[in-house]
Amino acid sequence: MSESQWYSHELRLPEYRRGFHLITREVEQSMPELRLIKIGWLNVFIQHTSASLTINENADSDVRRDFESHFNKLAPENAPYYTHTAEGSDDMPAHLKASLLGPSLMIPVRDGRLAMGTWQGIYLCEHRNHGGRRKLLLTLQGQ
Amino acid sequence: MSESQWYSHELRLPEYRRGFHLITREVEQSMPELRLIKIGWLNVFIQHTSASLTINENADSDVRRDFESHFNKLAPENAPYYTHTAEGSDDMPAHLKASLLGPSLMIPVRDGRLAMGTWQGIYLCEHRNHGGRRKLLLTLQGQ
Amino acid sequence: MSESQWYSHELRLPEYRRGFHLITREVEQSMPELRLIKIGWLNVFIQHTSASLTINENADSDVRRDFESHFNKLAPENAPYYTHTAEGSDDMPAHLKASLLGPSLMIPVRDGRLAMGTWQGIYLCEHRNHGGRRKLLLTLQGQ
Repeated sequence: MSESQWYSHELRLPEYRRGFHLITREVEQSMPELRLIKIGWLNVFIQHTSASLTINENADSDVRRDFESHFNKLAPENAPYYTHTAEGSDDMPAHLKASLLGPSLMIPVRDGRLAMGTWQGIYLCEHRNHGGRRKLLLTLQGQ
Repeated sequence: MSESQWYSHELRLPEYRRGFHLITREVEQSMPELRLIKIGWLNVFIQHTSASLTINENADSDVRRDFESHFNKLAPENAPYYTHTAEGSDDMPAHLKASLLGPSLMIPVRDGRLAMGTWQGIYLCEHRNHGGRRKLLLTLQGQ
Repeated sequence: MSESQWYSHELRLPEYRRGFHLITREVEQSMPELRLIKIGWLNVFIQHTSASLTINENADSDVRRDFESHFNKLAPENAPYYTHTAEGSDDMPAHLKASLLGPSLMIPVRDGRLAMGTWQGIYLCEHRNHGGRRKLLLTLQGQ
């Protein structure tokens, strides 16, 4: 059996508007060594606290629009009990959404590809109005 | 030090009704190589966008019933702002619940067993009324 | 290329009061072998079902206070549909919060350090009024 290999890349995304965005292709293209791996896993980690990552439906953009609508209900702006308000009304909800969705994904790799289901795609979840460019750290291990 | 080993299995579950279901035993039985691993970790990944995985209380089925009740409040059917409605009233809430809970688990392995706490069990979270059979991809690495 | 190494430690935290608490330093100090790893990842796993882990803003304690306020809205005590009530009014909400946030973190390691963003810290999320001391299992793999 051959030894496990490690690969690492940074992915610096362009600025996205507030909402949920498919980035499966960007992730795959930033880790060309995926094709060398027969069995392994990829960790995608976002180095921010007001944006997050999730996996969901990759076909219909209505799903991503409804995510934005619904997370605005789950973590609304200007809740009367917020005390962390100095950075704008979109800031505290952004932190809450980021933890509800999480900062990292662990995706199995098989036969040179991400082993996701047919309808699964990777979402960048941008929770700020002007979040700037987000930095992801990709780590691949496998053999 | 011996080299890390990789093991992979698919687990195709029977159809479960909508709700939260304990599948710890099914996962363990689908990965008999667990007993070969002294230190490692198991990734459990669900290849769907309207069902999910979590870890919670393994003893009292009331907890799982209350999960179903409460997630129906957190992501209700027929919210007036949903636009993704063509696949039924249970579909968009299923996508939202799936991302709130997440598609994968990373569980440490010690001395041939999942190193979970006494009261922890693995839940399949079935968010559709008729979700069909769900496919999980199990990946074990360790030594 | 050198072989991957595995390291494992238990971290038994002191009792924390209900709320969200920064434990980045405690995690780092419990895994001194971090400094030996050029590329790898750390898994932090909590062996409980009424406390959880997340990563969020490490500077302003107001953020952590607002997390407590908001999660008390997302999973309130004494919801009329709860059936799992024998262990106290804070118990069922604790289970729900634990699954919303999750029991484990997978953090990339680079050049001897956790590769988190500048503002990211590890939170212990204590959801019980008197949760006692919580046990974390740390697993580091890398080279």
